[in-house]
Amino acid sequence: VTADRQGSSAEDVPSLCQTERTRLRRKADRGCYELEAVRAILDEALICHVGFAFEGRPWVMPTTFAHVDGYLYLHGAAANFALRSLAEGAETCVTVTLLDGLVLARSAFHHSMNYRSVMLFGRAEAVVDPDEKTRALLAIVDHMVAGRSADTRHPSEKELRATLVVRLRIDEGSAKRRIGGPVEEPEDMALAHWAGLIPLVLMRGEPQRDGESTGAPSFHAEPEIS
Amino acid sequence: VTADRQGSSAEDVPSLCQTERTRLRRKADRGCYELEAVRAILDEALICHVGFAFEGRPWVMPTTFAHVDGYLYLHGAAANFALRSLAEGAETCVTVTLLDGLVLARSAFHHSMNYRSVMLFGRAEAVVDPDEKTRALLAIVDHMVAGRSADTRHPSEKELRATLVVRLRIDEGSAKRRIGGPVEEPEDMALAHWAGLIPLVLMRGEPQRDGESTGAPSFHAEPEIS
Repeated sequence: VTADRQGSSAEDVPSLCQTERTRLRRKADRGCYELEAVRAILDEALICHVGFAFEGRPWVMPTTFAHVDGYLYLHGAAANFALRSLAEGAETCVTVTLLDGLVLARSAFHHSMNYRSVMLFGRAEAVVDPDEKTRALLAIVDHMVAGRSADTRHPSEKELRATLVVRLRIDEGSAKRRIGGPVEEPEDMALAHWAGLIPLVLMRGEPQRDGESTGAPSFHAEPEIS
Repeated sequence: VTADRQGSSAEDVPSLCQTERTRLRRKADRGCYELEAVRAILDEALICHVGFAFEGRPWVMPTTFAHVDGYLYLHGAAANFALRSLAEGAETCVTVTLLDGLVLARSAFHHSMNYRSVMLFGRAEAVVDPDEKTRALLAIVDHMVAGRSADTRHPSEKELRATLVVRLRIDEGSAKRRIGGPVEEPEDMALAHWAGLIPLVLMRGEPQRDGESTGAPSFHAEPEIS
């Protein structure tokens, strides 16, 4: 890989470095390297898909995450083989995808989806400092529901030992998105097919209290758009 | 990899084969190999995340798909390097994930998510037969909106040439899910923290007609739950 690292763009917008791996090969106009765009997608997405090789073969694992101070944090049981592979230094590609709409064109060929995605590359490392580990685990809880960790029992020493946390520096990768309606062949515009956009939204429903739960919800209980 | 292939279970339910790679290592009670469960998840999910190695390094690409007659079909531009890698025989892991809920426990440790996921393994191959290619492309359109392909212009020969379609036999993999509310430590049950479930649903919004579209929508125009 020929690294063409650019810590920031000409306008000094904080950016991910561009390498041969993150150079946008196709539809480059849909992509960017600005950290602000990357962070906004990471903030909204609830899960990521973590790719790595194990015994030379590819694996893709869905998992929750959080990002704090320029690191993406993942966690799992100490025995989780995916997390262990990452902790042992396996290269990873972490992809985060938000679906925004179905794009229905007059031609089958131009059907598409609106989305926002982030792809990050690198090698993760195990987090050993108990304070950083605790911060990461609480951040993962807060990433599910903002402020939630303040209304929980925090991890015990035993729970910390049972949990493997790894972190990936957010420095190599890119963001990509598609917006808008269908793009058509000019000669298709007169065809009598319906065309347009069907928006997609991941909705949070009404919270369902656990039967024996006695606390008051510490978050806004109305359904909200994620 | 020690393959312990089982085409079907003792009850003769059509199943994916179990191999060392698909043996559920953790929380095996959440998993299964039944084709019906796998197909139901593939039917509902709009995208998959495709993992493969390129020049020895992992990649995870989000993309649309369809499944027909025991094959998972993926498509992209003929120049798409991910699809080309698959067509050239790279091993792949394709993961499909549906999010069903946020599980809020009294302890940070027991926070979780409800989900349904499928993980498939194998080597894909390029689809060269134009009829199968066309069927796959229309199936991908119908997978976005049921019956949609009947209301579109079908792919031209030029469009078929510009598109790479690959197929992966659905025979090695597993499905997994988590359902229900939080699982707690007994000693946490008296804590005054709210606990419960926040459902997640990917909603389809009101279709937005393209300004110049003259057809009538060929699908149910009410917002529907995906």
